[in-house]
Amino acid sequence: MLHINEHYLKLQASYLFSDIAKRVAAFQDANPDMDIIKLGIGDVTRALPGACVAAFHKAVDEMATDAGFHGYGPEQGYAFLREAIAKHDFQARGADISADEIFVSDGAKCDTGNFQELFSTDARVAIPDPVYPVYLDTNVMAGRTGEFRDGRYEGVVYLDSTKENNYVPELPSEPVDLIYLCFPNNPTGSTITKEQLKTWVDYAREEKALILFDAAYEAFIRDDSLPHSIYEIEGAREVAVEFRSFSKNAGFTGTRCAYTVVPRECVAYDSQGNRQPIHPLWNRRHCTKFNGVSYPVQRAAEAVYSDEGKAQIRELVGYYLNNADLIAKAVGELGFEYVGGKNSPYIWIWGDRDSWEFFDLLLNKAGVVCTPGAGFGKCGQGYIRLSAFNSYENVARAMERIRQALA
Amino acid sequence: MLHINEHYLKLQASYLFSDIAKRVAAFQDANPDMDIIKLGIGDVTRALPGACVAAFHKAVDEMATDAGFHGYGPEQGYAFLREAIAKHDFQARGADISADEIFVSDGAKCDTGNFQELFSTDARVAIPDPVYPVYLDTNVMAGRTGEFRDGRYEGVVYLDSTKENNYVPELPSEPVDLIYLCFPNNPTGSTITKEQLKTWVDYAREEKALILFDAAYEAFIRDDSLPHSIYEIEGAREVAVEFRSFSKNAGFTGTRCAYTVVPRECVAYDSQGNRQPIHPLWNRRHCTKFNGVSYPVQRAAEAVYSDEGKAQIRELVGYYLNNADLIAKAVGELGFEYVGGKNSPYIWIWGDRDSWEFFDLLLNKAGVVCTPGAGFGKCGQGYIRLSAFNSYENVARAMERIRQALA
Repeated sequence: MLHINEHYLKLQASYLFSDIAKRVAAFQDANPDMDIIKLGIGDVTRALPGACVAAFHKAVDEMATDAGFHGYGPEQGYAFLREAIAKHDFQARGADISADEIFVSDGAKCDTGNFQELFSTDARVAIPDPVYPVYLDTNVMAGRTGEFRDGRYEGVVYLDSTKENNYVPELPSEPVDLIYLCFPNNPTGSTITKEQLKTWVDYAREEKALILFDAAYEAFIRDDSLPHSIYEIEGAREVAVEFRSFSKNAGFTGTRCAYTVVPRECVAYDSQGNRQPIHPLWNRRHCTKFNGVSYPVQRAAEAVYSDEGKAQIRELVGYYLNNADLIAKAVGELGFEYVGGKNSPYIWIWGDRDSWEFFDLLLNKAGVVCTPGAGFGKCGQGYIRLSAFNSYENVARAMERIRQALA
Repeated sequence: MLHINEHYLKLQASYLFSDIAKRVAAFQDANPDMDIIKLGIGDVTRALPGACVAAFHKAVDEMATDAGFHGYGPEQGYAFLREAIAKHDFQARGADISADEIFVSDGAKCDTGNFQELFSTDARVAIPDPVYPVYLDTNVMAGRTGEFRDGRYEGVVYLDSTKENNYVPELPSEPVDLIYLCFPNNPTGSTITKEQLKTWVDYAREEKALILFDAAYEAFIRDDSLPHSIYEIEGAREVAVEFRSFSKNAGFTGTRCAYTVVPRECVAYDSQGNRQPIHPLWNRRHCTKFNGVSYPVQRAAEAVYSDEGKAQIRELVGYYLNNADLIAKAVGELGFEYVGGKNSPYIWIWGDRDSWEFFDLLLNKAGVVCTPGAGFGKCGQGYIRLSAFNSYENVARAMERIRQALA
């Protein structure tokens, strides 16, 4: 008799986006003429950059001839892309990362979800709250947590991100082995300074822990003092893996390309206490359970690093940042406390009331959809998230409506 | 202190393809003018079908405009592709599979590797020998095996595929829970009849086991009596998951698209013995650890089911089958025992000598690269695999050279 992995039964069904959809549908039914503006989701809305489109077409044309055809590629990604990434995203910023430390994949969700497989099931895991749910759910599936009680899984060390710590969690008060961090943060839009990140790197070195650093939103950083990569911090090569994505810089959410950086010095330990390098473990996992990213997609991603591509991406991200700035100014003028909106496409707003109540208020009074913060964890209660991923015109109209509704 | 998943340390390094590459390089160095013909790999060589190329370009053009842009899609795949798959690959053959039972992914390797995650780590696993190494390695990683001793992992029930059983394994003599089957088989090229497959389905029903059926090569079946899908067998919906790929029918090895079928009736059991449907578990895994296949790739895959696409794919597969026929005839005329070469791109040849010795013979005497059967498991010793994935001209030259070398 085949038995299931019973840890799956601990998973909480997420009704967040289906609940949002239901409330929006009900409001639309009651107000058929209302043009609802959606600032809830974290998905980009604008076309792929021209440089990526041109490279994409060119590669599809190669695949159309026997001579130019590409079959199975290297599971880790083609050298042309790994080298471009190492050079432009790391070496150009003084971060010493080489091409063979880059693993190209089809998504940061997959990589942040899969990476925990390399470690023992009794590893003690530290996860921020509020948080992107994948970190938590994949550790539940792996059996690193107990049951869900009072809004939290037993056995997880939650890293509270609150007004009090300016949405950058403090070091845990109990020992942990595997630490998830995400900056610029989803959902709060908060950022971390080099000094703050250094305290985490030092902590991980001290504890022989590993930091899984999700930098999917790094392209939104405009403040030169903020780190784009954890490898800008001394000592990070030994204790940090970094996740990056083409989803939010080049709009690849529907095109699918990302990468993970695993420095050669990163280690964990076997039960005898021997150092075990993580790079060969991830390489083995990647080669066994993954078969490489679509060749035309890798060519499209490579174009991100051309001069034309770089300019287009700066413009694309700048467009969303301009939206974020507009949202931040508007909510600030209305007297709300908020974080984000600078160096991030998200604005995290303290409503001083239940998250869903705030959601209903914006929907019913202004026809604007946000995401209730409670959907991201216990510390999200009382907050909502607004996203800059929409047209400038829609964002401007949404802010004007909110101003009229709440002023 | 972070500990690794020590099961990874049990994995045997696979030197198969690197050993092949080394021997080929040494031979080439010694014979710089020799034009070596490679019939070793399982990768396609011909251009993408025209219908797929046209659809691919069209979808990239959509992504180039704000109006036509596609961001995150459904993790399970777009309805247009799931519906085309259900209709053409299953319903048209009388197999009752609906679109919502299809999960589109970026590769059958990923799906066959990941599916075992849904089950308890003490599930008893039955795996063919010889075999595609992913089934075995992913179960080692999950901790379902003991150490590797005398060429096999402890704790695995190996299903021997030998001359004696015509390369279709017999039912296991001890109870098992999770059964991997692959037909048309990689590496042997053998096929399974409906009657034989029925005995496996009946066995799984009796044992409350699950069959993971890898049908990646089904497009090569030309014998109308053979099953393309396990769902052509009565009762399979309750005990079988099927893996399919666009890699071998439409040449998508470098384009990346595949799918997995999980019927609603498929169940495993919790520790109380309650039936637990597998569909929602796989759905949860897929939505948590995967973010959908690239939109343009899904459009290219959809084109496989157009009238034009169907004709092009039949021609493409027919081209490789013609090569396979040529190889089978040649090795038959040379007096070798073999299987495959019909309804499969692989020919599995009994050399009556060590696999690597046979490999060296073909390389040194004929300048032809094969794959030594011993690389696929203990039962592969004494065999080699020849693949039909090359140009007809190269295959004809290779066979002529082998004839001259061995006659």
